[in-house]
Amino acid sequence: MPLPTSFKTTRRVEFCDTDAAGILHFSAFFQLMEQAEHELLRSVGLSVVMSDAEGKIGWPRVSARCDFRSAVRFEEELEIVVSIGRLGEKSVTYAFAVTCAGRDVAAGEITSVCCRMKEGQTLEPITIPLRFREKLAQFVVAGAGGK
Amino acid sequence: MPLPTSFKTTRRVEFCDTDAAGILHFSAFFQLMEQAEHELLRSVGLSVVMSDAEGKIGWPRVSARCDFRSAVRFEEELEIVVSIGRLGEKSVTYAFAVTCAGRDVAAGEITSVCCRMKEGQTLEPITIPLRFREKLAQFVVAGAGGK
Amino acid sequence: MPLPTSFKTTRRVEFCDTDAAGILHFSAFFQLMEQAEHELLRSVGLSVVMSDAEGKIGWPRVSARCDFRSAVRFEEELEIVVSIGRLGEKSVTYAFAVTCAGRDVAAGEITSVCCRMKEGQTLEPITIPLRFREKLAQFVVAGAGGK
Amino acid sequence: MPLPTSFKTTRRVEFCDTDAAGILHFSAFFQLMEQAEHELLRSVGLSVVMSDAEGKIGWPRVSARCDFRSAVRFEEELEIVVSIGRLGEKSVTYAFAVTCAGRDVAAGEITSVCCRMKEGQTLEPITIPLRFREKLAQFVVAGAGGK
Repeated sequence: MPLPTSFKTTRRVEFCDTDAAGILHFSAFFQLMEQAEHELLRSVGLSVVMSDAEGKIGWPRVSARCDFRSAVRFEEELEIVVSIGRLGEKSVTYAFAVTCAGRDVAAGEITSVCCRMKEGQTLEPITIPLRFREKLAQFVVAGAGGK
Repeated sequence: MPLPTSFKTTRRVEFCDTDAAGILHFSAFFQLMEQAEHELLRSVGLSVVMSDAEGKIGWPRVSARCDFRSAVRFEEELEIVVSIGRLGEKSVTYAFAVTCAGRDVAAGEITSVCCRMKEGQTLEPITIPLRFREKLAQFVVAGAGGK
Repeated sequence: MPLPTSFKTTRRVEFCDTDAAGILHFSAFFQLMEQAEHELLRSVGLSVVMSDAEGKIGWPRVSARCDFRSAVRFEEELEIVVSIGRLGEKSVTYAFAVTCAGRDVAAGEITSVCCRMKEGQTLEPITIPLRFREKLAQFVVAGAGGK
Repeated sequence: MPLPTSFKTTRRVEFCDTDAAGILHFSAFFQLMEQAEHELLRSVGLSVVMSDAEGKIGWPRVSARCDFRSAVRFEEELEIVVSIGRLGEKSVTYAFAVTCAGRDVAAGEITSVCCRMKEGQTLEPITIPLRFREKLAQFVVAGAGGK
């Protein structure tokens, strides 16, 4: 039986994330996409905040982008579908599709690199730990690039 | 005498914009870039919130992207340089370069479309009003596309 | 059968709401309390954004306070209990108790005044509309003051 | 010559901090007050993020409150005056007065306790280090309580 290749969740447009134009502020989409990513990770027992024998591991972003197709307003409910467009040796690119009652709202991508976090030092990219890679693999969309 | 083709401002990394990884959260870069854009507009007597005889005009975003090159921490001071990569008939693309003490921190782009804002209705794109276009023209980078 | 006199909901600590001290930023508690208030209103068919024959009605805050008893971290799940401490003629005071796995986390209060919102004008307090008052009454805690 | 007993700074209302009611969201006042507090500390060479021989020291909030007297809108400029209402053995209470073009906008208070921050442990309150206390003393308002 095939595993799911995408993850779905929902978020409501909260008042504090709207702006004086009466719509969800564009920067809030990046926060909602990140929340969906973290929920995907939790669904397979992972977290962006973790440690191994050598210390803390983190996932700083190297790029993020979003196209906004239609505005959403206070109390509307968004559906967010997350998949993985690319699972590299040291980085992962999540793809997000946001809809509202079937209406296309936004589509975005966030790329993170797996790093060892050391206090007061430059972040050092590392190979994605195997236990992470194994669980992320199921979300890689068919036809998306490999290593 | 040539007019300036870019606009510079500074922003300090505020504590509420840092995250548990100890660095400025990636979504905050989009807020800082927007603040720099609005400051550019104020510098030439414009605002994203304005009205004409027919009602309110707004500038919803159609896309935003940012590459993050190095992390920044609480109380570091960022320099943000804003220019216009493309001034279309109905849209404008701002380009942002963020540095910290000479270090390359981030580079982003935000595209907005000029719209008439009507309560409870779909946003309708309109031709950028002449008084806006005339003042934005000076920030268009040489070689960047026109209409 | 007595109606419920409080409303419960949950919120997870999101990464973007943590700060460089590794804990939920104190300002985020006010956003979470507001989200719980709005969810209480939705549960009885109300919203802070509504209109009547004369135009828009809003609920600007006149005061907010919160005591913080213990820190919470990324991915912890908060339980928020909302009740109404005072339902006045023109204002309402919501009381919030936030816990995390049984641990006392925070307790707060937000007071809002019912106002007619007119473009470019001072907000004018008005008597809380009856359909609002009737539905809010069930959440008033026993012994709490009236008008 | 007497030292100043209060600290003044300014902040502009940014678009991302407004809400669908067209005004600065109430939670943003707490962020602006904190930013003013941190600026006061920088002005005397201090920071809320510091370390001593035993490790990291932090200043988690134990309470915060704010009264909101009038709404402010996008691009309005706020003046924030910060003083210290109480400088205790382990805690400090900052007082904030926010005005906009002479108009009374908000008044708030934030109390923080000086703590040793240890990874994965409960925060432990400690006596405020002397170099902090000496520099904060000048901002204590006359008549305000001592230890």
